[in-house]
Amino acid sequence: MSTFHPVTEQDLAYFRSLLPGRVFSGADISTDYDHDEMTEYGHFLPEAVLQALTAEEICAVLKYCNEHHIPVTPRGAGTGLCGGCVAIHGGVVLSTEKMKKVLEVDTRNMTATVEPGVLLMEFPKALEGTGLFYPPDPGEKTATMGGNAMTNAGGMRAVRYGVTRDYVLGMEVALADGSLIQLGGKTVKTSSGYSLIDLMIGSEGTLGFLTKLTVKLIPEPKVNLSLLMPFDDLDACIGAVPQVLACGCDPTAVEFMEREVISCAETYLGKQFPDTSADAYLLVRLDGPSVEALQPAIDTLTDLALSIGARDVLLADTDERKESIWNARGAFLEAIKGSTTTMDECDVVVPRDVIPQFVHKTVEIGRRVGVRIRSFGHAGDGNLHIYVCRDDLPEVEWKEKVEAVMHQLYDTAREIRGEVSGEHGIGHAKKAFLRDSVGERQVQLMRGIKAAFDPNGILNPGKVIG
Amino acid sequence: MSTFHPVTEQDLAYFRSLLPGRVFSGADISTDYDHDEMTEYGHFLPEAVLQALTAEEICAVLKYCNEHHIPVTPRGAGTGLCGGCVAIHGGVVLSTEKMKKVLEVDTRNMTATVEPGVLLMEFPKALEGTGLFYPPDPGEKTATMGGNAMTNAGGMRAVRYGVTRDYVLGMEVALADGSLIQLGGKTVKTSSGYSLIDLMIGSEGTLGFLTKLTVKLIPEPKVNLSLLMPFDDLDACIGAVPQVLACGCDPTAVEFMEREVISCAETYLGKQFPDTSADAYLLVRLDGPSVEALQPAIDTLTDLALSIGARDVLLADTDERKESIWNARGAFLEAIKGSTTTMDECDVVVPRDVIPQFVHKTVEIGRRVGVRIRSFGHAGDGNLHIYVCRDDLPEVEWKEKVEAVMHQLYDTAREIRGEVSGEHGIGHAKKAFLRDSVGERQVQLMRGIKAAFDPNGILNPGKVIG
Repeated sequence: MSTFHPVTEQDLAYFRSLLPGRVFSGADISTDYDHDEMTEYGHFLPEAVLQALTAEEICAVLKYCNEHHIPVTPRGAGTGLCGGCVAIHGGVVLSTEKMKKVLEVDTRNMTATVEPGVLLMEFPKALEGTGLFYPPDPGEKTATMGGNAMTNAGGMRAVRYGVTRDYVLGMEVALADGSLIQLGGKTVKTSSGYSLIDLMIGSEGTLGFLTKLTVKLIPEPKVNLSLLMPFDDLDACIGAVPQVLACGCDPTAVEFMEREVISCAETYLGKQFPDTSADAYLLVRLDGPSVEALQPAIDTLTDLALSIGARDVLLADTDERKESIWNARGAFLEAIKGSTTTMDECDVVVPRDVIPQFVHKTVEIGRRVGVRIRSFGHAGDGNLHIYVCRDDLPEVEWKEKVEAVMHQLYDTAREIRGEVSGEHGIGHAKKAFLRDSVGERQVQLMRGIKAAFDPNGILNPGKVIG
Repeated sequence: MSTFHPVTEQDLAYFRSLLPGRVFSGADISTDYDHDEMTEYGHFLPEAVLQALTAEEICAVLKYCNEHHIPVTPRGAGTGLCGGCVAIHGGVVLSTEKMKKVLEVDTRNMTATVEPGVLLMEFPKALEGTGLFYPPDPGEKTATMGGNAMTNAGGMRAVRYGVTRDYVLGMEVALADGSLIQLGGKTVKTSSGYSLIDLMIGSEGTLGFLTKLTVKLIPEPKVNLSLLMPFDDLDACIGAVPQVLACGCDPTAVEFMEREVISCAETYLGKQFPDTSADAYLLVRLDGPSVEALQPAIDTLTDLALSIGARDVLLADTDERKESIWNARGAFLEAIKGSTTTMDECDVVVPRDVIPQFVHKTVEIGRRVGVRIRSFGHAGDGNLHIYVCRDDLPEVEWKEKVEAVMHQLYDTAREIRGEVSGEHGIGHAKKAFLRDSVGERQVQLMRGIKAAFDPNGILNPGKVIG
């Protein structure tokens, strides 16, 4: 790793010549840029913020920064949860927030090509009337599609449709030296050399800067409905998951939720959840061409659930019912955040058969260390979100406790062959846990890859590895 | 790239001490090991063939060969089509043919863990009675699952289910230095650093040696049926594909076939194809829980096909009917092979909307150069198999013509943003075409990756890149 150079007035002048009116430095930099959604991981103000409009501008900035050893931190909407888009080594933040054009919707090939700054919540507008849709559904709708690709974001519909990786067909990427490469395109399969596109996906901007993205679309399912299954306890609830997945009903999403987290969401939203009878719920969503076509699946799942301990099965097939359930589910993160002073989070993914074991362990760890822990998650894919709440703990005690808890959580995950992150990524906050999880040999391989792409180490330094 | 050392008597003695009774050299080596399914690409007898039984043996062989600069060519069943498992630089062939155990079928996590030498045709036996199945369906059933993973093999069911990459969850890999790493496992999603597992998939043994594989299984669809749609010509036939894919019927496979290739298969199999009325056919397969559940899709597809030029729609819902169609389709490669003295093949993948354009171009190129060309392919995913037949052309003329045709085919594919290989890989035969296709900068990145994994270049040298 080279020593980085500070951003000088001369550098700023050059950036201003490249990106007139879109270069900010010193007091002109909004403090929004010094953190992502996890302020717990610190505030790092960059030396300059550059807002790009084109791939050519991005290439020119990278070429210059590479030659002058200035760190470049890529940033979309800043909605990450691991500090991935925060300039921890200073230098410039290169933002895609102004690159928001949907460049093409190709209905014949069922693809769309977008600039990296298109927001997940805005993209569906471009698909209206085409009958096509983009399945990945990360919870944070104000995230950018570029950020989603570079962190391999997941979301609730992953059980049926897969994650962002499964929908990225093509990428245009600016390399550290300012050259521009095209990876993939509109082809839907390939065995043509090392999969550089798969390497780029989830690399969090440490190997290249995404300038354009082509994604796969699929025919939009005409209807969806949800089944809410109250269970006496979490074990029975999550214990049902393997059978729900294996019964051939092809669920879109399978979420678990506990009463205490639902209560948090009720308070946060000021709205009641449609059922109060149980301690744990399994929520199953089905997509299909019509309600009639889904009826056999509804029947199968209902019989199955009742036979393995569900107290009831509530069908949510009206918009109102669906919203009351899914809005609560969608508010969990913000609700837990709002219920405490600050918090840390753990996004492990574990084999599905050991979810109950892992959730019990989190409760036990929280009790032993003496902090409040809340969790919910994607039961259908083993990805859990565990939140450690500071509440009114004093600073020093909090730091000690949260560190102890995090280490115990990740150690436990490792023992059961889990991985550090299911969908949020590594950033700078989870680097040590990644190293512990995959071991030094794999980190060494990743460093070798990094060196091949970015020999001067200017791209998002201090993230993922390094 | 280091200079390789020849295999000495001392080396052989060491190998024999490691793998007693499973080391072959000199005249004891079967000539089966000097080629894969494409003898057109030459015969290269290795200096030794080693048949491994365990990961520990593989690690020991690699460590030794790495220290002694002896090339190691990995080999499964030798069914490749690009010379990927052929020892073009001599050294040892390290074969997984004796590593054929299905180690575990985990019904709760819906995964299976296998040794790399398990044959694709034998694997389903291990799943009998579980209600689970493994969707990837490459045409060559005597291939190994390890070979499938290392070439990212595709197959006809890719339209609905995806390719091998989409089903690989975990890998145990021996690195060039003899260390063993675990990539992934039974987790179904991850955002935990660079995706080394995706890099390994399709790397054709140039980055590591696969010693164990964990794949994802899904609930087995209870029924399948096929619709055969005769069209007047290829344009109308392939022109129907975008609408077939977009109509919401979620086809498992969408194949196109022309009369002349069907005739080849009829001759080869000695059996009649169930329809002789048309020049071009679209073959669509549907999977589902019951025939009743598929009826709306059958109706939609039938109406659609008839409205856009199909002469008829033949439903194949009996085993006999299905077999007569799919056996013909399955025999295409062997039938074309049997119809000529030798041949070369091109496995390009192109955006689906330009398939007809590309197929016309192949006919035009064949006519211009003066060689017989036959093609068929996966219309649903844009992956075409084009065969250039030597027939009775003299050696020199054949070499000239085939080189001219191949360059024109790949140039044409590149112009329409196609890729060199959809599912067969690069091996040594397609290296130059890969370089032309992705450009020197990407090859340079791949070389950097190779150097990080295999600094002495002993793993399958001369393949993919290098």
